[in-house]
Formats: sequence, structure tokens, C-alpha cells
Amino acid sequence: MSLDTGGYKGASMEFLSRYGVAVGDSITVTTADGEISGILMPRYESASRNYIVVKLKSGYNTGIEISKIRSIAKTDTKKSPPVQSESRIEEDGTKPRIALISTGGTIASKIDYRTGGVRAALTASELYASVPELAGYATVDPEVLMSEYSENLRPDHWTAMAEKVASKIRTWKYDGIIISHGTDTMHYTAAALSFALQDLPVPVVLVGAQRSSDRPSSDAALNLLGATIFAAKAEVAGVFVAMHAGSSDDAIACHIGTRVRKNHTSRRDAFESIGVNPAAIIRNGEIEMQPNEFKMISRGSRQLALRSSFDGRVMLLKYYPGFNPALIDNAVDSGYRAIILEGTGLGHVSRDCFSSLKKAVKAGLMVCMTSQCIWGRVRMTVYDTGRDLLDIGVLPLSDMTSETATVKAMWALANSDSIDDAKKLMQQNIAGEISSATAI
Amino acid sequence: MSLDTGGYKGASMEFLSRYGVAVGDSITVTTADGEISGILMPRYESASRNYIVVKLKSGYNTGIEISKIRSIAKTDTKKSPPVQSESRIEEDGTKPRIALISTGGTIASKIDYRTGGVRAALTASELYASVPELAGYATVDPEVLMSEYSENLRPDHWTAMAEKVASKIRTWKYDGIIISHGTDTMHYTAAALSFALQDLPVPVVLVGAQRSSDRPSSDAALNLLGATIFAAKAEVAGVFVAMHAGSSDDAIACHIGTRVRKNHTSRRDAFESIGVNPAAIIRNGEIEMQPNEFKMISRGSRQLALRSSFDGRVMLLKYYPGFNPALIDNAVDSGYRAIILEGTGLGHVSRDCFSSLKKAVKAGLMVCMTSQCIWGRVRMTVYDTGRDLLDIGVLPLSDMTSETATVKAMWALANSDSIDDAKKLMQQNIAGEISSATAI
Repeated sequence: MSLDTGGYKGASMEFLSRYGVAVGDSITVTTADGEISGILMPRYESASRNYIVVKLKSGYNTGIEISKIRSIAKTDTKKSPPVQSESRIEEDGTKPRIALISTGGTIASKIDYRTGGVRAALTASELYASVPELAGYATVDPEVLMSEYSENLRPDHWTAMAEKVASKIRTWKYDGIIISHGTDTMHYTAAALSFALQDLPVPVVLVGAQRSSDRPSSDAALNLLGATIFAAKAEVAGVFVAMHAGSSDDAIACHIGTRVRKNHTSRRDAFESIGVNPAAIIRNGEIEMQPNEFKMISRGSRQLALRSSFDGRVMLLKYYPGFNPALIDNAVDSGYRAIILEGTGLGHVSRDCFSSLKKAVKAGLMVCMTSQCIWGRVRMTVYDTGRDLLDIGVLPLSDMTSETATVKAMWALANSDSIDDAKKLMQQNIAGEISSATAI
Repeated sequence: MSLDTGGYKGASMEFLSRYGVAVGDSITVTTADGEISGILMPRYESASRNYIVVKLKSGYNTGIEISKIRSIAKTDTKKSPPVQSESRIEEDGTKPRIALISTGGTIASKIDYRTGGVRAALTASELYASVPELAGYATVDPEVLMSEYSENLRPDHWTAMAEKVASKIRTWKYDGIIISHGTDTMHYTAAALSFALQDLPVPVVLVGAQRSSDRPSSDAALNLLGATIFAAKAEVAGVFVAMHAGSSDDAIACHIGTRVRKNHTSRRDAFESIGVNPAAIIRNGEIEMQPNEFKMISRGSRQLALRSSFDGRVMLLKYYPGFNPALIDNAVDSGYRAIILEGTGLGHVSRDCFSSLKKAVKAGLMVCMTSQCIWGRVRMTVYDTGRDLLDIGVLPLSDMTSETATVKAMWALANSDSIDDAKKLMQQNIAGEISSATAI
């Protein structure tokens, strides 16, 4: 049997061959600084620097420079993955059955480590080889639904995801769903699925990765492990996003799908809950539910109602000094049905916009207000500007993020018979997107 | 002499008359809970609830319900404000001379406490009556330049402010400038002045208030005091924003003008430095400079160069799933000269936008990329999407906020001879808006 080179080549592959170790083996590496024990991890073939990646018992990957290695001892040979064939679903009857729907992004390219770059295929055996701990919590059946960087996803992709989830739940009776997803728009998709999948009986957990797996600091394996633990063991249902809770590797946060935002371009803890706690923190394999005003739905208590249509005729407009009201006129003239204004402060735009906004409302558009502050609540009764905008018919959206508001407007338009009904839906809390207004 | 009713009326005015105390008097109030000592503060006439407002020695305002008051003892009569006439500038030669330019917003309406609502006038005596501590640090000469809620401010207002500041420095030789400003767009104005006022010899400090003064939790007085201390005593020059550093009243943060953002709709510490420390924290009357990579300009070391023109033909477009590339075409067709894309993650938009972006670049527009993540840095070499956008000619703006980028583009277009020159300006750090790329 030839050794699994797992993306290593050149000097690093020769080095590993010398010690007779292969990807997946448990090893102890001796350097001048001491000993490091863990599992030899695969690397992207496109990465060619002279180090090896070892996964520590903590789950953290560490890179070790070959030139600093004095010796490597193999302590255990690679375990066979629990699933040998992609099509076979293990049914041992003891572990929860989880469907992993892959849509693309860094996390999928990471698990697909052999070819480097992005490869669509994601087999069960590859999955378990990358994150062997998964087998301890669940039988995970992966399926590739699409392979897109998330910046390319559109509302029709949300529909496809919602329908796939519905089929996994209704037809295949999975105990939980994981959706691997690019991080760029994962919070938009999380909001979309929160509205499209009403009365969920199981957890649906979106998961991504901020760092590709050839970097020692990759978050892919731990995020996926956290998502799996939550999907398998949580006693609540709903749509969540599982990502690093901090910059260390000891905790994964599980955010409510409508209340999460990507707040950093590169940090592993880029995703944050806005205005509320995460639903749960996953630490040491255990789920710690967090205090929250939202009543969580119990697992198994409801029957899924699928409302998977979205109407893309929604324009998100961020206000700024010098903003030309012609942008509002353009929305009306171009056949949009709703405008989400990302206003300043408590929910304001310049009075120069008033006449265009009046025209938009008169033309039957739904015009809503959120705040570019991100945190806090739109309150349009405090200043003249806000009161004038209320008089014009602009709807204040409380503490809904503008991203969630944009997605919700697309959903509300497609799932109501009139603009008036859509407006009612917008101001009603459906999936945790509006919190109670007791706090300022 | 009749007592100064300072906005009190009805029950509260009668109550104060009974004890012979007036606004500005030092008093000790006895309640069932103990004694509270401080200065009796004025209130809005529009406020009619049954309490009085006392400013504690800490500078914090507290409201006391009249029904809970057992007695009031006057410990000192109101001090005469140091400046009796609005037009007279006190020149005692010992204290720094500070110009306070009022532009409107909550803070101006607060200092103008007598009429309730918003009144434009701001006299020196009213100012000192509201915040008597100011006199200990500086001679402050107020002037009303405009009276606008900041959501109504446009680039031509920035020009007017820059020119007024220049005149205060060049002609009137002030030691520091304070600009009171509505908070909604204060960070946009701070960025604008950072570019318009090159080589400043003194500090220019923008200051606002999140809470109006008839609320016990008003931040107006302390923010203004912090701004005054910094404008009077700081050894550095530049444009800054002074606001509460936290939700308690013990510290004011002085943020770098290009690196600050309003991140909460209502909290007193809504303004945060993005990606760097604040320039300084002001605590107990002292300025604590904070470590920062930016080399601060020393006070008095330069001669002001005024570059106060802005070209408003800049469109800020926030990307979202379902974003229609026709919005980009519309910018080209409408005669815009630049587009700031607020992309996802490391600086991405959907590939559906590529052909419109090519057309825009070909038509001579400057197209720049920032991230809606807010924190972190645009890095367009990591993924295919970013590399494709770079090939199209989209300029990555590193860790510039999209608000600062929008303002800077307006300034760069008006202060360069060609789009190519403007592009060079955009990618060059001029006023701290781009930090070094050593951190991820």
C-alpha cells in the first residue's frame, strides 16, 4: 500500500517517507523546543512550504517547520474512516443521522484537501478522514448541492437550499442538517432559510471557514465539529450559524440565523450575534445554551412548513452625505417593489430625499428603514426627521439588521398577497429578527 | 433679581422657589436614600415631569423625583459666567483660546436649554452656565455656523466648515477648534475635514451628544468638556472626534477622524475607532495618549493647507445577494465619476457584476472596493473573485471604512487633475485612513 501523501510534495513528502508516516497517522514530533503529538494532517498540493501540519488533541492545527524537526515517531496508524463508500449511509441506529449539504466556499475546499484549489466533490470518507471526531457524534451523510463562492449566491439559490433541506427532513428523516457555505454571504442565507423554513422540527446549522486548511490556523474542522454536535445533540430546532466564538479554539458559537453578521474580513470569530447572545456555545463537546429573550422551539415539536419563494425586486440603499435622491426614483422606475434604506443613527435620511420617498410610497413600493450603525434600534419618533419619514410612510424596522431586512423583504413580497400584507410581515417578529424594545 | 427658572415650570418651579434655589446654584438635596450634592441644572421647557436635574461633581447629571425630596439646602449661589457678552472674547492671556463652531444636532440643542426644542443661538454665557468647568481649561468663543441635523449635511457643508476652521486658525490664531455636530454623520464630516485640512497646526475636535439634556443620562456636558481639554491641552494636531469611551462617565475617547464610526444608534459610547486605538482617552481632566502606529503631528509644527473642495459625484453601493448590476450601469449613465463598492468579506461582489464593472472602468469611472464587514482589511488576492475584480481594475482600499472611502473619493476627485491621479490618492495613506498591512 502506498503512503497517503495528502497534498505533501517535494521536500516535505520525502521527509515524511523517510519516517514512514502518512496522513492520518498519529505521530509524536520531536523538535528543539520539545515534543508535539497529534495526527498528521493533509495539505493543499498548491502549498509548497517546508512544513508539516499536525492536529493536536485540542483540535487545533499547528504547522511545524521541517528544518526544526529532529525526529518523528509513529504512535498509531491511520484509522479507516467509518464510511467506506460515498453512497452508503451508515445506519447503526445509535447515533443521530445528520445530512451535510455542501454549497461551496472555503470549508468545502478545505475538506476537499487533495487537489488544492476548489473541487466540488465531498465524499463521506474524505470528510471522516479530515475530521475523524465527527464519527463520535453522528453519522454524517454529505451531499454536494452546489459549489459556489457565496458572493455569487442569489435568492434562487436560497430557494434550492430550502427545498433540499425540506426533502432531507420530510423524506429522509434526518435528525439535523448542516449546510457548509462560503462565509461572505452566509448571514444572508441564514436569514433567508430562517424565513423559508417555518416550524422546523430539527436544527439547521450553517457552517463555514475563514482560513483554508493548509494554514495552521484553519478553523474548518472545529467549526464543522461544532455544527455537527449542535445538529446532533441540541434539543432545539431552528436555523443557526456555527463559527468560532473567539480567536482561540476552545469554543464555537451557534448564532440565531436572523441575528448574525460577518463583522471581520478575516478573523476566525468574524461572525457575531447582533444585539443578543448567541443561542449556544459549544465547548468540550457540550452544548451550553445561552440566556436569550427568544423562546426556542423544541426539537420535534412541529411540522415543517416550506415558504421558499423570494422576490428579488428589493433594493438596499445605504444613505451617505451627498446621496442623490435620484437613486430612489431609479428604484421606482426600474420596477422594484421595496426599498430598504440603511439610514443614519436612529433611522434618518436627508430631507432632500423626502419628495422622492413620497413618490416611491405613492407608487406602491414598500420603503423600510434600518440603521447603518449596525447595533441599536431604529427609533423614528425622537427627532423631526424620523417623524417626517414616518408621516411619509417609511416603515421602521426596530433592531433588524439591514442584511436580514433585505432578505426578509424579498421573502415577505413573495409570500403575501399585497404590499399591505408584506408590510405587516415586515413589522412582525417571525424568526427572532426583531427583539423586544425594552432595552434602548 | 428673579430666579432663573431654567426650563422648570409648574410643580417643579414652585418647589424650587420654595427653597429659594435657582439654576446654577450649588445645592444639597436630602432624600430618604441620603444626600446628593451638586449644581442645579437647567431643563427643557418642553419637559414637564416632576423631577429636578442635579449635576454631580463627577460631571454626571442625575434626576431626582420631587416627591422623594425631603429638603434642599443651598450651599453656594450661581457663579456669574466668566463671559458676560457674546461678542466679547476674554483675553486673560493665561488660558488657551478655543473656537467652538456650532453646526447643529443634539449637543447644540442641549446647550441651548432655555427654549426646549432646537434653537440656533449659542452664546458664551449660556455655554459657561451649562458647563462651568470649561472656564478652568480655556476661553471658549462660540459661533453658530449652521443649525442642521447632521443627516441633512452635504459635501458643501463640509467645505463651509473647513473654510471656517481655516479662518479661525489663520486669522484669529485660535489654539484649538471644537465643532459641535449632530452624531448621525459626524464620522463622515470628521473624515472630510481630515482630508480638507492638511497640515493642521492645532487640534480640530468634533463633538456631539447622543442624549438630550433633559435626560439624566445626557452626555453633552462631558463630551464638550473632553473636547475642550483635548483642544486646549493636547500636544498633537489633527482632526478628532470626542465622545464617551464607555457607558460610564469617567472617560472620553478622542478618535482619529478617518478611523471612527457610529456603531450604535443610541448608546453614549456609540462611536468606536475601527482597527486602531483611539488617539487619546481623557480621564480626570488629563489626556492619556494611546499607542498607535500613526505618527501624530505635533501642535504648531505645520502651516495649514486648505483643500476644501469635494466632488459629490461618488456613489456608495452596498452589495447584497440579488444585487442588480444595472445599479452600476446607472452610475455610469448618470454621470458619476466614482463608485465605492461595499463588498462582502475580503472585498467581493458577484461575478454577475463583472461586465457592468468593466463598462464602468472603461467609461473612466474610478471603482473602489471596501468591505461591509466593517472590521478587517480588503484582500483581493486570496480568492478568484478578488483577482478577477483586480484584473477589471477595481481598486482595493485596504482597511479604509466605506464611509471614509466615500468621502475621500469625493475629495480626491476634486483635488486631482485626472482620474489616474485620484486613484493614486485613494491608495495612499493621507490622514490615517489606511493602516499598515502587517496585521491580518
